[in-house]
Amino acid sequence: MAQKPSIPKGTRDFNSETVAKRNYIFDTIKKQFQVYGFQPIETPSFENSETLMGKYGDEGDRLIFKILNSGEYLKKISDEDYAERSETKLTPKISEKALRYDLTVPFARYVVQHQNEIEFPFKRYQIQPVWRADRPQKGRFREFYQCDADVVGSTSLFQEVEFIQLYDAVFSALQLKGATLKINNRKILSGIAEVIGAQDKLIDFTVALDKLDKIGEEKVKEEMLSKGIPDNGIAKLQPLFELSGSFGAQIESLKSILITSEIGLKGIEELEFINTAISQLELKSAILQLDVTLARGLNYYTGAIFEVSAPDGVKMGSIGGGGRYDDLTGIFGLQNMSGVGISFGLDRIYLVLEELNLFPESVLENTKVLFLNFGEQEALYSLKAVSQLREQSINAELFPDLITSGKQMKKQMNYANKRNIPFVVVIGDEELKSKVYSLKDMSSGEQITVSLQELQEKLS
Amino acid sequence: MAQKPSIPKGTRDFNSETVAKRNYIFDTIKKQFQVYGFQPIETPSFENSETLMGKYGDEGDRLIFKILNSGEYLKKISDEDYAERSETKLTPKISEKALRYDLTVPFARYVVQHQNEIEFPFKRYQIQPVWRADRPQKGRFREFYQCDADVVGSTSLFQEVEFIQLYDAVFSALQLKGATLKINNRKILSGIAEVIGAQDKLIDFTVALDKLDKIGEEKVKEEMLSKGIPDNGIAKLQPLFELSGSFGAQIESLKSILITSEIGLKGIEELEFINTAISQLELKSAILQLDVTLARGLNYYTGAIFEVSAPDGVKMGSIGGGGRYDDLTGIFGLQNMSGVGISFGLDRIYLVLEELNLFPESVLENTKVLFLNFGEQEALYSLKAVSQLREQSINAELFPDLITSGKQMKKQMNYANKRNIPFVVVIGDEELKSKVYSLKDMSSGEQITVSLQELQEKLS
Repeated sequence: MAQKPSIPKGTRDFNSETVAKRNYIFDTIKKQFQVYGFQPIETPSFENSETLMGKYGDEGDRLIFKILNSGEYLKKISDEDYAERSETKLTPKISEKALRYDLTVPFARYVVQHQNEIEFPFKRYQIQPVWRADRPQKGRFREFYQCDADVVGSTSLFQEVEFIQLYDAVFSALQLKGATLKINNRKILSGIAEVIGAQDKLIDFTVALDKLDKIGEEKVKEEMLSKGIPDNGIAKLQPLFELSGSFGAQIESLKSILITSEIGLKGIEELEFINTAISQLELKSAILQLDVTLARGLNYYTGAIFEVSAPDGVKMGSIGGGGRYDDLTGIFGLQNMSGVGISFGLDRIYLVLEELNLFPESVLENTKVLFLNFGEQEALYSLKAVSQLREQSINAELFPDLITSGKQMKKQMNYANKRNIPFVVVIGDEELKSKVYSLKDMSSGEQITVSLQELQEKLS
Repeated sequence: MAQKPSIPKGTRDFNSETVAKRNYIFDTIKKQFQVYGFQPIETPSFENSETLMGKYGDEGDRLIFKILNSGEYLKKISDEDYAERSETKLTPKISEKALRYDLTVPFARYVVQHQNEIEFPFKRYQIQPVWRADRPQKGRFREFYQCDADVVGSTSLFQEVEFIQLYDAVFSALQLKGATLKINNRKILSGIAEVIGAQDKLIDFTVALDKLDKIGEEKVKEEMLSKGIPDNGIAKLQPLFELSGSFGAQIESLKSILITSEIGLKGIEELEFINTAISQLELKSAILQLDVTLARGLNYYTGAIFEVSAPDGVKMGSIGGGGRYDDLTGIFGLQNMSGVGISFGLDRIYLVLEELNLFPESVLENTKVLFLNFGEQEALYSLKAVSQLREQSINAELFPDLITSGKQMKKQMNYANKRNIPFVVVIGDEELKSKVYSLKDMSSGEQITVSLQELQEKLS
């Protein structure tokens, strides 16, 4: 019985046009990763469950795709355990492998496992799919690519500077002007929490602060109050709500708030270093902006925090992000390995380029010339020319089926049209005899008769 | 507690050197796929289980990696079923998705699902990983890439001709000379079985014949006899064991065997067509060879069968294979869609290139120049030059940490050495003042002082 074919929800088939556009983005990112001295690594699609579980919080654990053990997987379970009929109990026994949830944890695992073969600081990039059992929705998929670049083994702030340049370089190469690179520092968030007496409420505090854009100053204050942050502490935040002007001006305001916090001032110092360097190096198309409300996976980052917004006018969540984490490899037993990294959101960048019409036309170029097929002898004569063209790296095709009717002829012309093939070659008795080729330009309709040499030149 | 990091058996981490070499092969294959007019598609890593199950035989079903349903996956099971404690019963209820086992079945599903958007004949290529819960061994992995090109929607034998050329083009581009492209035709196997009265024992017959190389003529005959193939039938095979000489000469011998079999003669006609065309078009580096013992997934192919052997002297199983199948999409409800395709075995081609030392040195080029880091001011001055170089697509790095001791200096030089970075730039007070750069050639040890302009020229 024929099955009605479909694919699992949250997954996608990509046709050749989409693959070509996606590869354009991948190739552009990859090129810049290499220009910046990053080296590629790849890790397996699935890891041992214990490598992944417990690294992304309870919600993450739930969203990890688990792979069923092969063979008689029920044998390992005691009668008692089986009788309990509990997923929590059963899952770790019947599933020992799981699909990669992100590229960061596998990278940490890789660094620890291969530490003796690696030259530190280790600048690696990784472009691979990840899988999450999330509820699919617009722009959110169960299989999607991450494009990450990280450095581990150096605490130098020049890394942060270079990552900002790298973002700028990629967006410039993609002709995407006006992306905003928002930067913050975890130490500044800690400092503010300290100053307002909310050290123990850092998460509540940042969750509330993060909503400033959406709900406004008053509501943010209310939320903080409701979370038990003292009134006089909140009052000290006033300058934070009035932050404006240049990066430098905002830094000055922040200083006045954080004057009593050692860690806060350290965060300011780091931001100033980065901003000074970037001012001197200059960005080509992106804008660097301080955003003290930026938190992003707070428990994870220890220094700089990055997030990238699409250019004004394009409605889209963040198209990239990253930051510094001081103890990523600690979970796998390698201490004191500071790292910093950034990520590009492929799917969203795709949507932005589509919306702004920024994919170059050349991306969709595929076959340059189609040879129509008027008979076995003609086809063989054509294939010789096709072979020559291909050796010159000219994408060429012979239509495989013979033209035996006007309908077939129309079909082959139609094929060229639908595939956006710009040229068609027609070989009849005349051409065979004189060893020439009739070349038709599909857009102008113009037809000329040329030698093989001329054909090559025309199509190069 | 720190976990000792490891990866699941049968999977691999790839370091940057290996990724670069693998990408060299992928890119070479992809380039030729495009030159031949194939278009890329991609399908999801996991499919609905019913798409895959039952398509690869019982053994295949066992080797498919199944993904555990998310959430309360035990709820769907009746108490009765649960009490049975049977994997066969449980698996389809707790797992509704499975990892791709090959690229062919997902491709068939794709064609049927998207038939209204596709221009036929549809020439597609697909380069993606597949997963099999096979016992890992040398050269056999649980995650590995397949590189497939297929055409569906045409019965023209010119496709077979072009696939032979495509194999030749890829191996030529890889500088791999002397690969043997073995070809057979399912119709010839059917014809032989018919002639010797073993139509109903086609598989026994071909399994025995397939062993000719390994066990020799007598043992093959014994095996056939033991499987119930009649003595007088086996006697008719004699010319088959004596096949030798050119493709054409072997074809003539085959004709004498198959004279009474309509399907056998049809197979010969097809082979002759292909051989004639290839003789005229000429191969550049591969050798086309008739091999009537070639069977490969017999139940699947209906016409041509291909298999590629590495050049003589390299011990390696087949490095590629393929053939024509007349009803691939039938399982998904689309009848009469003839297809033909080939596959490249990435992992084995990698091993062959490694053994024959055929990877070009340029494949391993990464960073061209490292700027040592003698202080903040020097680093900023360096980063300006680094940025300029990067804009010229020259891969450049600044060592992130400051040199504060002779040991640090040595570490940075060491980093350049280990990373195979051919040039190092040193910036001291002098260079800063005169706005120049001291460029050291790491292989010759030679050091020259240059302007930024000269630096760019030198490194381009």
